[in-house]
Amino acid sequence: MQFATRLDNVETSAIRELFKLLGTPGIISFAGGFPDSAMFDVEGLKEASSKALAEEPGGALQYGATEGYEPLRSQLSAFMKTKGVDVDPSGLIVTTGSQQALDLLGKTLISPGDKVIVEGPTFLATIQCFRLYGAELISAPIDANGVKTDELEKLIEEHKPKFVYLIPTFGNPSGAMLSLERRKKVLELAVKYQTLIVEDDPYGDLYFGEAPPPSIMALTKDVAGSRELVAHCGSLSKVLSPGLRIGWMIAPAALLAKATMCKQFSDAHTSTFAQATAAQYLKSGRMPATLANVRKVYGERAAAMGAALKRELGDAIAFEQPGGGLFFWARLTGANGKLADANVFAKRAIEKLVAFVPGAPFFAANPDVSTLRLSFATANVEKIEEGIARLGQAL
Amino acid sequence: MQFATRLDNVETSAIRELFKLLGTPGIISFAGGFPDSAMFDVEGLKEASSKALAEEPGGALQYGATEGYEPLRSQLSAFMKTKGVDVDPSGLIVTTGSQQALDLLGKTLISPGDKVIVEGPTFLATIQCFRLYGAELISAPIDANGVKTDELEKLIEEHKPKFVYLIPTFGNPSGAMLSLERRKKVLELAVKYQTLIVEDDPYGDLYFGEAPPPSIMALTKDVAGSRELVAHCGSLSKVLSPGLRIGWMIAPAALLAKATMCKQFSDAHTSTFAQATAAQYLKSGRMPATLANVRKVYGERAAAMGAALKRELGDAIAFEQPGGGLFFWARLTGANGKLADANVFAKRAIEKLVAFVPGAPFFAANPDVSTLRLSFATANVEKIEEGIARLGQAL
Repeated sequence: MQFATRLDNVETSAIRELFKLLGTPGIISFAGGFPDSAMFDVEGLKEASSKALAEEPGGALQYGATEGYEPLRSQLSAFMKTKGVDVDPSGLIVTTGSQQALDLLGKTLISPGDKVIVEGPTFLATIQCFRLYGAELISAPIDANGVKTDELEKLIEEHKPKFVYLIPTFGNPSGAMLSLERRKKVLELAVKYQTLIVEDDPYGDLYFGEAPPPSIMALTKDVAGSRELVAHCGSLSKVLSPGLRIGWMIAPAALLAKATMCKQFSDAHTSTFAQATAAQYLKSGRMPATLANVRKVYGERAAAMGAALKRELGDAIAFEQPGGGLFFWARLTGANGKLADANVFAKRAIEKLVAFVPGAPFFAANPDVSTLRLSFATANVEKIEEGIARLGQAL
Repeated sequence: MQFATRLDNVETSAIRELFKLLGTPGIISFAGGFPDSAMFDVEGLKEASSKALAEEPGGALQYGATEGYEPLRSQLSAFMKTKGVDVDPSGLIVTTGSQQALDLLGKTLISPGDKVIVEGPTFLATIQCFRLYGAELISAPIDANGVKTDELEKLIEEHKPKFVYLIPTFGNPSGAMLSLERRKKVLELAVKYQTLIVEDDPYGDLYFGEAPPPSIMALTKDVAGSRELVAHCGSLSKVLSPGLRIGWMIAPAALLAKATMCKQFSDAHTSTFAQATAAQYLKSGRMPATLANVRKVYGERAAAMGAALKRELGDAIAFEQPGGGLFFWARLTGANGKLADANVFAKRAIEKLVAFVPGAPFFAANPDVSTLRLSFATANVEKIEEGIARLGQAL
C-alpha cells in the first residue's frame, strides 16, 4: 500500500516506545502529560450529563452546528470574559480538544513548504501535526520567561513565517511563563510584521500562586491592530476532563470561517453529547471550586517535586520551579562528572522503576539531549519523593 | 490572510444557502440528512452514561488510546460479528463519527493529484473531504443496483485510482443498494487490479423489509485475497445518535496504523466519555430493539413518501422505492412539459413551504440537474403527505 507523501514528514513519536514500559509493575511515572483522574469532578459531570439529557435530549444527541453547540459557545464566551477576553459566542468555535484546533490551523493555513515558528522546545503533537501539512518548522529559543522576543523578531524577519505558535503560559514541556513585557512585545511584532500569533493556552488556569499575566489574546486590547492577528486555543482537558474532548478556538472571522469549513469535513462537529454536558457543567457554577482544587493539589505536588529534585540530585540538575501547569523542565548539568545525556538517564531510571521523558524530541530543530521533562501531576507527594529519590540513585 | 492552497479545491457547500431557509415557519423539510430526534433512545443512553461514569470514571473522563476505548472496541467487534464480519477489537479503530474515518483515509492515502473513484452521485462531504487532500475525483455511474461494475472496471483500468469509495447499501443520496452479484464483482476487481475499496456503511442496519446482502467487508471471506484490500467505515449516528460522534474503521493493519498516527495529531482520540457511554449502551442489550424500532418507523415513512410521490407527481418524477436508509433519489422527467430542472423546482418548492435538496452538488463530475434528494426521516407520515402534495402544486 502506498501512503500519501505527507506521511514522509512525520514519524511515530520517539517516546512511544518508552510509554510501552509504563505498565511495568511498581513503576513511578513522571512521564505522562495528563491530569490526575482522581481530581475529576465525577459527581458534577454526572449531574451535568443527566441534566443535558433531561433538558435538551434533541440537542445533546442530534447532529449539531459545526461551529459548536450554542449553549456551550455562550458559556465559553462567559468563561473567557472572566479571563479578560471579550469574545462573542460567534467569535469562537468548539473543537474536539485543542489538538483539533491545531489540526484545523494546519489544514487551513499551511501550504507545503510554509514556515512556522515554534518554541524550542514545544509540544510534540504540534510538531507532528504541522509537519503533516508540510510545514517547515523554525525553532525559537526560550528561557524561564518564555520565548526570547529579540531572537523571535530576527526569525520572523528572516523567515516570514505563516504564523508563530506559542504556549506562553506554563508551556508543555517548558513549564515557562512568558513575561508580561514579552507578551506585549509579541503583539507588537505581530503588528509590525503582520504575522499571525497562535496562542495555545491549555494550562493558563492551572497556576499555583499568583495568577499569570493576562493571555496574549486578553492583551490585544492594549496593542492597536493586534486583535486581528491572534488565534487563541483553549481547552477543558487539563482542568476538568480530557475525555470530554472539549477545546475551543478564538480567531479572526475569516480564519474562523475557513477553519469551520475544514472542521465540517474533519468530524462534522464535536460530540454534542460532550458539548451539552460541558455547557451544563459550566452553567452549574462548580468550575471555580474545581479550579481552586486542582491549583491546590498540583501546587503541592510541584513544591514537593522541586524540593526533592534539589535534595536528591543537587547541582547535577538545573531547573526553574514552575508557577503552574503540569511539568518541570530540567537540564542535566554534568556537574561532578555526572551523566549529562537524558536518553541514557531515562534508560537507567527505568531500571530503577521510575520514568520521565527525555527532552530531545520536543525540539523541532537542534535538540538539547541534556534536557528532560518531569510531570508532577499524577503521582501523590509520597510517590513523588520516592520517585525522585530513585532518580537520584539512577544518576 | 493567506490560506493554504488546498482550500482552493473546495467551496462551502452549495446547499448551505438552502439550509438557511429551513427556519422559515411552517416549512416542511425533506432536505436534512439526519435521523429523527424523537427516535433516540434517551432513557437507554442516560442509563449507559450514568453507568459509564459510575463504573469507569477514570476511563470515561481521562485521555484514552488513540485507537479507541478498549471496551467499545470489543463491543464493536461483537456488533460486527452479528453482521457477518470477523474482526478482532484490535482490527478496528474508533473514529469521531464516520466523517473522521473519511478524513483519516484522505490524510493517510491521498497525495495531491491522486485519483479516487466515487459513485456519481455520492455523499457531499466525501467529495469536499477528499478534495481538501488534493484528490482528483472520478465519477462512476450507478443505477438502482448501485455502481455499474463494468463501467467501474473501465475507470479503474484507465485511472489507476488510489482507492474506490462506495456507499453500497442505501447510499446517500442515491438510496441504491448494490446487488450481491456486483458486491462480489467489486471484490474481484479489487484483487485483479490490487485496488483498495473503501466501503462506507452508515445505513446498512437501516433496512425496512428483507435484510440487504452482506457488506463488502463480510463478503471478503468468499473472494480470496480481498480482505487486505477493503476498508470498512461504520457509524452509530443513523441508528442510535449522531451526537455521540461514534464511528469506526476496519482496515488492513498497515493502513490502520498510519490512520491511527494521523488521528493522534487530529484529535488525539474520540471522546472517551462518548465511547464509554456507547460501550455501555451496546453492552446493555438494547440495540436490537432500537434497530427494530427505527426500521419500522422509517419504513412506514418511506412507504408513505413513495405512495405520495406517485399520487401527487405522477410521471413527472421517476424514482426507485428505497429498501432502507433515509433517502429517495428522484429524477424530474419533464413529462407533459413539466419542469425538469431541480434547482428551479427547489426554489418554487420553498415558496410553497416545502424543502428538498437538488441533486447536482452530489456529483463530483457531470452533474445531472434533473435529480433531487428527498429525506423521509424527520417528518411523520401526515407531514410527508402534506409536503409531497405541496411539491405537486409547486411542479
